Amino acid sequence: MTEAIAAAFFEELAAAGYARLSLEAVAKRAGAGKAAIYRRWTSKLDMTVDLVSAVAVNASGAADTGTLRGDVLAFLTEVADALNEPLAARIIPDLIAEGGRTPELAEALFAAVRDTRRSRATQLLERAVARGELPADVDREIALDLLAGPLYWRLAVVHTPTAPDHLDRLTDMLLAAFRA
Amino acid sequence: MTEAIAAAFFEELAAAGYARLSLEAVAKRAGAGKAAIYRRWTSKLDMTVDLVSAVAVNASGAADTGTLRGDVLAFLTEVADALNEPLAARIIPDLIAEGGRTPELAEALFAAVRDTRRSRATQLLERAVARGELPADVDREIALDLLAGPLYWRLAVVHTPTAPDHLDRLTDMLLAAFRA
Repeated sequence: MTEAIAAAFFEELAAAGYARLSLEAVAKRAGAGKAAIYRRWTSKLDMTVDLVSAVAVNASGAADTGTLRGDVLAFLTEVADALNEPLAARIIPDLIAEGGRTPELAEALFAAVRDTRRSRATQLLERAVARGELPADVDREIALDLLAGPLYWRLAVVHTPTAPDHLDRLTDMLLAAFRA
Repeated sequence: MTEAIAAAFFEELAAAGYARLSLEAVAKRAGAGKAAIYRRWTSKLDMTVDLVSAVAVNASGAADTGTLRGDVLAFLTEVADALNEPLAARIIPDLIAEGGRTPELAEALFAAVRDTRRSRATQLLERAVARGELPADVDREIALDLLAGPLYWRLAVVHTPTAPDHLDRLTDMLLAAFRA
């Protein structure tokens, strides 16, 4: 039942957006009662942070492939796959926008999702420093923005078409930036 | 009156989001009647695209400073200033999220805002190619994502704190990426 509720939650969230999401609609779509939801989660905020972070943190985000180039390409591939998934492509921008209006949602998602993912991406950079592939003083803060920002911009904001070798080319350009 | 309506529109849009924006509330906040709005715009969509694109396209986006480094730093400064403006910081992510649910809004904003801004940023790159500062085959598509994406990610998505020399460092890293 928890899985059916989770699936219904993501479908409703993608269709309605967080602001208009109703737990009644989630329960109805899952073929469950509202009590089944309130046994597991105390509120819409609690349910959202719990289910979203379970998916976002499950994504490994930083496989160790043995080289910086391999790690960056794997990281970008995972981000692109996530943003090309139709439900995620609606849910992620919606939660980001809603976070601007609902500070308690933003803070809960920062703690549960952002900080975990950033710490994994930092490990990717630290491994490259340890291998001698990046200078010890590489700007980790900007490197994290470069790993996520350009793909997010393309796939979730401007929606411009993407060439087949896009991730390869982006990887090469990011490696040059990290080493600047 | 048009200016008062525009100011009221942006305040309402920032507070309520596009989905819940009501033209009655805009009229009330502007001290105008609904007729004053419908004389100028045919719908909420029409009003949004017209007023948002007037602001977004007014921003020059691509000053010619004489060097690629100067042009990139000026571009990034303008993006950062826009995203640090409290109303814009709420409105831009909201419109991006709403575009995922309302294709006619996305299409109108792509045509009125995205395509104009992309064409100006492309001119920044073409000037650098003409000056011999970038190779003729620089990947313009990825360079455009690099100009906007990392700053958008930091200032509008993850909201991590920014060092005083952030734009300078980002500029140096982007120049290395463009030349890769």
